[in-house]
Amino acid sequence: MTRPLNIGMIGYGFMGRAHSNAYHKVSNFFDLEYRPVLKAVCARNATNAQAFAERWGYESIETDWRKLLARKDIDAVDICTPNNLHKEIALAAAEAGKAILCEKPLAMNAAEGEEMCAAVEKAGVLNMVWYNYRRVPAVSLAKQLIDEGRLGRIFHYRAQFLQDWTISADVPQGGHATWRLDVDAAGSGVTGDLLAHCIDTAIWLNGSIADVNAMTETFVKERPHAETGKKQPVGIDDACAFLCHFENGSLGTFESTRYARGHKALYTFEINGEHASITWDLHDLHRLGYFDHRDDSLVRGWRTVHVTDHDMPYMKHWWVPGLQIGYEHSFVHQVADFLEGLAQGQPVSPTFRDALETQQVCDAVLKSAKKRTWMDVR
Amino acid sequence: MTRPLNIGMIGYGFMGRAHSNAYHKVSNFFDLEYRPVLKAVCARNATNAQAFAERWGYESIETDWRKLLARKDIDAVDICTPNNLHKEIALAAAEAGKAILCEKPLAMNAAEGEEMCAAVEKAGVLNMVWYNYRRVPAVSLAKQLIDEGRLGRIFHYRAQFLQDWTISADVPQGGHATWRLDVDAAGSGVTGDLLAHCIDTAIWLNGSIADVNAMTETFVKERPHAETGKKQPVGIDDACAFLCHFENGSLGTFESTRYARGHKALYTFEINGEHASITWDLHDLHRLGYFDHRDDSLVRGWRTVHVTDHDMPYMKHWWVPGLQIGYEHSFVHQVADFLEGLAQGQPVSPTFRDALETQQVCDAVLKSAKKRTWMDVR
Amino acid sequence: MTRPLNIGMIGYGFMGRAHSNAYHKVSNFFDLEYRPVLKAVCARNATNAQAFAERWGYESIETDWRKLLARKDIDAVDICTPNNLHKEIALAAAEAGKAILCEKPLAMNAAEGEEMCAAVEKAGVLNMVWYNYRRVPAVSLAKQLIDEGRLGRIFHYRAQFLQDWTISADVPQGGHATWRLDVDAAGSGVTGDLLAHCIDTAIWLNGSIADVNAMTETFVKERPHAETGKKQPVGIDDACAFLCHFENGSLGTFESTRYARGHKALYTFEINGEHASITWDLHDLHRLGYFDHRDDSLVRGWRTVHVTDHDMPYMKHWWVPGLQIGYEHSFVHQVADFLEGLAQGQPVSPTFRDALETQQVCDAVLKSAKKRTWMDVR
Amino acid sequence: MTRPLNIGMIGYGFMGRAHSNAYHKVSNFFDLEYRPVLKAVCARNATNAQAFAERWGYESIETDWRKLLARKDIDAVDICTPNNLHKEIALAAAEAGKAILCEKPLAMNAAEGEEMCAAVEKAGVLNMVWYNYRRVPAVSLAKQLIDEGRLGRIFHYRAQFLQDWTISADVPQGGHATWRLDVDAAGSGVTGDLLAHCIDTAIWLNGSIADVNAMTETFVKERPHAETGKKQPVGIDDACAFLCHFENGSLGTFESTRYARGHKALYTFEINGEHASITWDLHDLHRLGYFDHRDDSLVRGWRTVHVTDHDMPYMKHWWVPGLQIGYEHSFVHQVADFLEGLAQGQPVSPTFRDALETQQVCDAVLKSAKKRTWMDVR
Repeated sequence: MTRPLNIGMIGYGFMGRAHSNAYHKVSNFFDLEYRPVLKAVCARNATNAQAFAERWGYESIETDWRKLLARKDIDAVDICTPNNLHKEIALAAAEAGKAILCEKPLAMNAAEGEEMCAAVEKAGVLNMVWYNYRRVPAVSLAKQLIDEGRLGRIFHYRAQFLQDWTISADVPQGGHATWRLDVDAAGSGVTGDLLAHCIDTAIWLNGSIADVNAMTETFVKERPHAETGKKQPVGIDDACAFLCHFENGSLGTFESTRYARGHKALYTFEINGEHASITWDLHDLHRLGYFDHRDDSLVRGWRTVHVTDHDMPYMKHWWVPGLQIGYEHSFVHQVADFLEGLAQGQPVSPTFRDALETQQVCDAVLKSAKKRTWMDVR
Repeated sequence: MTRPLNIGMIGYGFMGRAHSNAYHKVSNFFDLEYRPVLKAVCARNATNAQAFAERWGYESIETDWRKLLARKDIDAVDICTPNNLHKEIALAAAEAGKAILCEKPLAMNAAEGEEMCAAVEKAGVLNMVWYNYRRVPAVSLAKQLIDEGRLGRIFHYRAQFLQDWTISADVPQGGHATWRLDVDAAGSGVTGDLLAHCIDTAIWLNGSIADVNAMTETFVKERPHAETGKKQPVGIDDACAFLCHFENGSLGTFESTRYARGHKALYTFEINGEHASITWDLHDLHRLGYFDHRDDSLVRGWRTVHVTDHDMPYMKHWWVPGLQIGYEHSFVHQVADFLEGLAQGQPVSPTFRDALETQQVCDAVLKSAKKRTWMDVR
Repeated sequence: MTRPLNIGMIGYGFMGRAHSNAYHKVSNFFDLEYRPVLKAVCARNATNAQAFAERWGYESIETDWRKLLARKDIDAVDICTPNNLHKEIALAAAEAGKAILCEKPLAMNAAEGEEMCAAVEKAGVLNMVWYNYRRVPAVSLAKQLIDEGRLGRIFHYRAQFLQDWTISADVPQGGHATWRLDVDAAGSGVTGDLLAHCIDTAIWLNGSIADVNAMTETFVKERPHAETGKKQPVGIDDACAFLCHFENGSLGTFESTRYARGHKALYTFEINGEHASITWDLHDLHRLGYFDHRDDSLVRGWRTVHVTDHDMPYMKHWWVPGLQIGYEHSFVHQVADFLEGLAQGQPVSPTFRDALETQQVCDAVLKSAKKRTWMDVR
Repeated sequence: MTRPLNIGMIGYGFMGRAHSNAYHKVSNFFDLEYRPVLKAVCARNATNAQAFAERWGYESIETDWRKLLARKDIDAVDICTPNNLHKEIALAAAEAGKAILCEKPLAMNAAEGEEMCAAVEKAGVLNMVWYNYRRVPAVSLAKQLIDEGRLGRIFHYRAQFLQDWTISADVPQGGHATWRLDVDAAGSGVTGDLLAHCIDTAIWLNGSIADVNAMTETFVKERPHAETGKKQPVGIDDACAFLCHFENGSLGTFESTRYARGHKALYTFEINGEHASITWDLHDLHRLGYFDHRDDSLVRGWRTVHVTDHDMPYMKHWWVPGLQIGYEHSFVHQVADFLEGLAQGQPVSPTFRDALETQQVCDAVLKSAKKRTWMDVR
């Protein structure tokens, strides 16, 4: 028989849906000791909380996250709020002895992240950050190929996260749907929202980043606030690009923007090694590009691996070869691994501390752009 | 408040999982009057039925489908058995006044299909066949574009369904996982299994097929039986290709095989019209190819539409632009439309009668191949 | 020192340019015993002939092909006329002892082709037909991979040649630029013009075709004549598709049309073997698709081979890896091989007899379509 | 009647072949007042010069470039030597009143380039640098689309030039074939060789670059010299990446390396504008990617324009729609434009002065990398 893990979710936006779906599906597709139970959802507005609870089957609601944390019937807290609340909630949740699943980026900055790490480590609670793209099967496969040494010495790492949804100056900042454009709620723009994903994957695949050299730009200088309609200066970075050195000697180039017309959520990366190279992009997330110089030269070329066979990471749990899964499945995989870590008493990556490193790179990137100089990450 | 629709599922294989997942998800993502309730699953073996019920949350099990049909607390029956049982179950279900969702192909042949149509129409029960690919958003979009007249007069329709999983002569026939290779359980090989999908989509998009001219082949002549291990002659078609005329004057070419090395489930179609053309394939099912000759010639070219924006069919129910969904979502969409039809008192396509037309084409194809001549469909 | 081969060209249209360019370039890029010398070009209209001669460096002109054949200073005759003149010229050229390079298709039909084969074989003159696509490096590579046995037993061969330039009913038939739409000049429509290429490649790569089953269509029934402007019935096939069996037991499906909106010259083929598969298309002719099931399953996928390295067929003669060549180079390669055959006293494929087999398939295809039945090729 | 332009070529390597081929072909395919005449080729080694002259039809040879410049029968000088000789030859050629076609990069550095510009402008001779990629039809089309304002305000420009041919430490430096790895002959590594192409195109398409911030790396620190076999320190940059601001306010990211396993000559660029975006890559140079946000949203997507129709830049001179040209044709187009400029008495871009701006960016890039700081270009 499976054991329940009672979930209390704070926040109910886009990520609240993605996580709730994952909690529902994981037990249908994975054989695990624990099963998530949707105990409570918390939102400031009771009507919204109630509607969300009904749709997703949460047993109860709260309107004050402190009350949620105080409940004995909650085992794990899922933090899906805007970034500016992550720290406060996480600290309280750690103190309450709850396991914590926190949306990315970990915090508003590395200093906050340090506090959060200290708190969960002191409390000894299981902790994880939702850098979900690690668990896209093609990305997990990339990790496996690199760890097997197939690429040899790495020379280059490239990543981009390109969107185009804020080109119009009419898109507001602040509020429920557009808090990511409000620097007070988000901490930064594309750096914390998009590049953080790229950096997390990069560190996971290619090791730590030593130093960075960045430029940022805010193309639209003023936007109306979603709630007041009043025009306010834009405090976030609309675009950010940086050069870096990895500690293994390879060179990195990273870029993110919300002004790349034609790209909705085009997260791409490419890794060039001595023997082999890898490419991936989020718009066709079920494929991995692979080139191996050791192939017979007559049939040497870029391969596109359709990552659907049962020997691919996570794929034996789904359908049959040739039938693709989508974006939401990465969250299911992350919940499955979280539950497995819980059962085994093992940490589940990315932990808060793993995510802190990404935060440190983000901080260095933003400082470098401001000072117009190279910055060491640590 | 939503109203329950009590589902009784017969069979628990691959399609049983796909449908069960759809019943679970539909209420999270769609706002509908009815919500599916997983009342019972039926399988001959009680242990298997019990395990499936626990995993998917069915409230009860049956081991005799007649008993399932006799239950008053079952509103709708989902037939997921091998093809040779479809008719008998459907006839009984119709008589019992149940709504029926039947896996494709409708029947072993058109004669059986006729009986089934007559039964559901006489009983006046809602009926639908699981030709799920119609509800892949890109395919639904193709339908919309054609119905808007964007392609103009149609000249050509091409479809393929290519797999490679039976190339080895060691793959058995019969049994739970490989009944599709046993002519007694399946009725035919790729024609009923794969081409039926192609034909259903083709008729939906391009209208009726007038006549066909086919060839079939069985590359591996003998296979062991999965249960006895005894080698037996193979009765199914391993590959089938046919030429046809549509009633609108366009030409069709269709091909399916399980011997196309490198393709797992490559269902593709292309439609060439006077003004515009469309392409689609199942290996990247979230994309639609589109070419419009009326474009400014300097920037005229094949477009690849990443079908994830909220104005695309079904997509407002899912994530945000750029984030793809997968195979399983086509079933969720079909359940959503079924529930909507139920609420509105409207038929939901493809009905049994719609599916009968596909069956008639399949019959004509198999006869044409046998007789080595053109065959009219009706 | 190189030896001259004096060329006399008959016709000066599109193919006249392609061949003339090849004669010019071959000596710059290949080291050969023979070098082509552009001795004379023949066209009925002296002004046109003169203009062509000046542009391409022909030393002289003729307006009567019989006079060209009578000249002692002509070693080889290149027949670039419409199809209805191939036979008469070839017979006379053979009798005059000239080497012959003849545009495809060989003749108006197989009976004419037989006469032509008999004539060149009796005369013992070197003879070749311009099925140039064999010498696209990626296609030559496909031949090499198949001959090495990499694909294993072949199950399927598929080819298409799709164009869209005759969709408008205003495109005329007959005349200099559109003789291909006039059945009297061309003999057939897409069958002889486009499918002939597909068939030539198929036989070369996969062996002889045993029987065929075809359908043809003429979508536009009347077109104005280019010279008179008078509307006349269209005698050619606008589209043709056929099923076939190869003698090695594999199945073939072929289709060609000039009504596939969006495709200019999309010649594609795909071969599925027991172990590996190959794809190619003319719109990216410098690439070959390759899938090998024997690859390590984690990195198994379709490869796209960028056929530009120096160990690829013909490529050491051109630029450096990564830099592509184009359509016209296939003709240069064919001239190079012709000159090499001349030096070695060896036949150069496709010979007239090789091309006769393609003609026989074309004849069978047209007969099958007319009679609505399977036809044996021989 | 056409007028001769007598060419004297200095150098006979890879670029000597590419240019010679262009001189040969241009008169066959373009109608121009001038026709190139291959008067003389100059190389230090008479045997090599003679062999080259015979293959390509040069009428005479020289072994001292000063003698070539002294000849009255030479109208134009084509400089195809390693970079360290460009200045000296160009200065002398200008003084001799010859038109000059110079291989890229213009010079070893901007100071040399300044001298060269001054010299040709003082002498009033027609001058051009072989940044040939501007005349790839798809790139010329990009220019046309941008100039028509289709993209609107530009936000981002990205370019890469990725190769993999120097990964092995056994590749030598210096000598005839590998002088590009010798800093004394080449001036720099990928910056002058590859990024110079990217920068030239970028300035042409998107205007001047204001400032840059670069990093360079030399992965292999020592290489044998091609002539002596002695190991020597490597002085060139193996890889270079830089960030920049264009004067129009857009952001640029550039990267080049010879350590990107799997890429032979992958020059790519992407431009993101307010309304539309463009992509191109050299490995499929006959295609242009285009996305226009103003398209009807249901069929909005990235288009791949197969740049072969007759209304595309330069394409009416070649074959028919669908049939691609290759790398070498960009040189033919550049010669055609040069001859047209000569006839019209107009400068032909990129002139020495145009190329000087690219040189200034290259200089700033190399200085920025050395000083680890942002550098203004001028």
